Amino acid sequence: MVHIINNESEEMMISNMLDGVAATYNTLLQRIPKTYIMLKKTFSTHQVGLVSGGGSGHEPAHFGFVGEGMLTASVHGVLFEPPQVSDIVQAIKLSDQGLGVLLIVKNFAADVARFSKAQQIASQEGHHVSMVIVHDDCSLESNTFTKRRRGVAGTVFVHKVLGAAAKSGLSLAELTDLGERVISEIYTLGVAVRSGYLWHEEEPMFPLRKDEVSFGIGIHGEPGYRYEPYISSEYLANELVNKLEYQFDDVTESPFAILINGLGSTTPMEQFLMTHDILKLLSLKGIDVQYCNVGSFMTSTNMSGISLTLFQLKDKQWLKYLNESTTAFAW
Amino acid sequence: MVHIINNESEEMMISNMLDGVAATYNTLLQRIPKTYIMLKKTFSTHQVGLVSGGGSGHEPAHFGFVGEGMLTASVHGVLFEPPQVSDIVQAIKLSDQGLGVLLIVKNFAADVARFSKAQQIASQEGHHVSMVIVHDDCSLESNTFTKRRRGVAGTVFVHKVLGAAAKSGLSLAELTDLGERVISEIYTLGVAVRSGYLWHEEEPMFPLRKDEVSFGIGIHGEPGYRYEPYISSEYLANELVNKLEYQFDDVTESPFAILINGLGSTTPMEQFLMTHDILKLLSLKGIDVQYCNVGSFMTSTNMSGISLTLFQLKDKQWLKYLNESTTAFAW
Repeated sequence: MVHIINNESEEMMISNMLDGVAATYNTLLQRIPKTYIMLKKTFSTHQVGLVSGGGSGHEPAHFGFVGEGMLTASVHGVLFEPPQVSDIVQAIKLSDQGLGVLLIVKNFAADVARFSKAQQIASQEGHHVSMVIVHDDCSLESNTFTKRRRGVAGTVFVHKVLGAAAKSGLSLAELTDLGERVISEIYTLGVAVRSGYLWHEEEPMFPLRKDEVSFGIGIHGEPGYRYEPYISSEYLANELVNKLEYQFDDVTESPFAILINGLGSTTPMEQFLMTHDILKLLSLKGIDVQYCNVGSFMTSTNMSGISLTLFQLKDKQWLKYLNESTTAFAW
Repeated sequence: MVHIINNESEEMMISNMLDGVAATYNTLLQRIPKTYIMLKKTFSTHQVGLVSGGGSGHEPAHFGFVGEGMLTASVHGVLFEPPQVSDIVQAIKLSDQGLGVLLIVKNFAADVARFSKAQQIASQEGHHVSMVIVHDDCSLESNTFTKRRRGVAGTVFVHKVLGAAAKSGLSLAELTDLGERVISEIYTLGVAVRSGYLWHEEEPMFPLRKDEVSFGIGIHGEPGYRYEPYISSEYLANELVNKLEYQFDDVTESPFAILINGLGSTTPMEQFLMTHDILKLLSLKGIDVQYCNVGSFMTSTNMSGISLTLFQLKDKQWLKYLNESTTAFAW
């Protein structure tokens, strides 16, 4: 199966991709030479810096969320590997305007370790650095039934809310507290209808029969908790919504924001068909959706499928933050 | 191979998709009940109306280009079939604020016939309606070497330029003339690395070996003019740029805008890697690129591949039109 790749090396491919992004959005973003850092080009407000990142293979995450009202910088690793500590440290320094920097990290052990190390180094050099860890995935281990709590597409809601809040002038301590409150109200569940392929590899990331789907997949090729024959878009919507609603104490207490995320090779038609089915189901359940965004935000190379994120808006201000404008190109 | 579809009927699936779009962008767009028309929700300027459309399977075309500074309305057909004449007529009526309506049509016989019929009916009812036909595809018939001149991704540049021009107050006659001048400077060529599948069908739209690519494909599953083994992203860029540059008399005379378009299931990483390679090659050739947009704009269900559009900016005003802001969500 052909994918469009560069045959020199994985490092060169990622480097070229980042240069392609920087050239396309040259008034918005810059790539810091000899690093995998993408930095906002101009700082129009004096605010706390926001830095996020992770392995490659999840595009447009995270460079697509760098911009006024979202991230100050994104830091990238090679495929499915966290960024280098030295790159994270440099991104912190470049993003710190004297008010400190907040790191937004997805809950994978290797990512948390690298970002923690960078936080420690930058702190020793006099920067005020906090970290919040996103763990929105509510999939289960199929054997042990323990919650996986990985950080997945809900991370993008955290970027948006904290980005708007940082722009409005919140302090580092206030943003850290807000981040923790927001993260506890965000849950995501994904379904793959076709497995992805890693570059140069002939075998799919996980086995999936051609008539089969897998619920609860991860964004690094981790298989899901259940395999079933494909039935219909409504059936997928039903499984996702039913599992997600039980994560919340009372789904009718406060309104929701939802994010419908294509996992890489999912077409706009598939995304909007799922949007229709999910919104219809949420409406039947009396769940009040006040914000909806649809697109490919947090992908897993060329896997095809959808993740649904529910975010209960316990504070009216959170909806305002979601609705603020941003220059980030992938929001 | 599983795709996310609705199993009731093709009509229901498209209807549900349009409702999903309207619900997501409910401050921007509305679906006209019992039609496949997507109409801008508010008219903040008094201007000539712009209507475009075509078959489904090309999402986000064309509903993603409805908004302030682009289209007034889009009209949709079922999969790869042009819209109904009655829907086009109604879209014209809804878009006409008294200054007339311009139809932007892709050059396929069935589309041109339906839009022409609608133009005739609306004109008889007293509307001033003009039409421009986009024929940017410079692929050749593999047997006869005749130019195909289909309307493909370059259509989106026409939407953007005419949309900004209409907003700035140009008359219907001026817009029609501008459209014809712009269209004559736009050329597109596409390459598929994986064939697409139609809903419910097990066979791909055209045969493509798993190590093979096809240059010059169409957006309705038309195979290309040449099949070759996949080599690298640079090689694809080379073939596209070399074929496209010969469409223009003098590529150094005026600067260019380029559109790098994912054909459906092409990931952002693939799109930005191609962007890097294409920009590098254009730079080596001394071609001055002053505008670049990258994304999935005009797709062919779940085909994977890239089309490149070159647009020579013979008039400085055209670049200004491209850079004007728009509320259309897919630009």
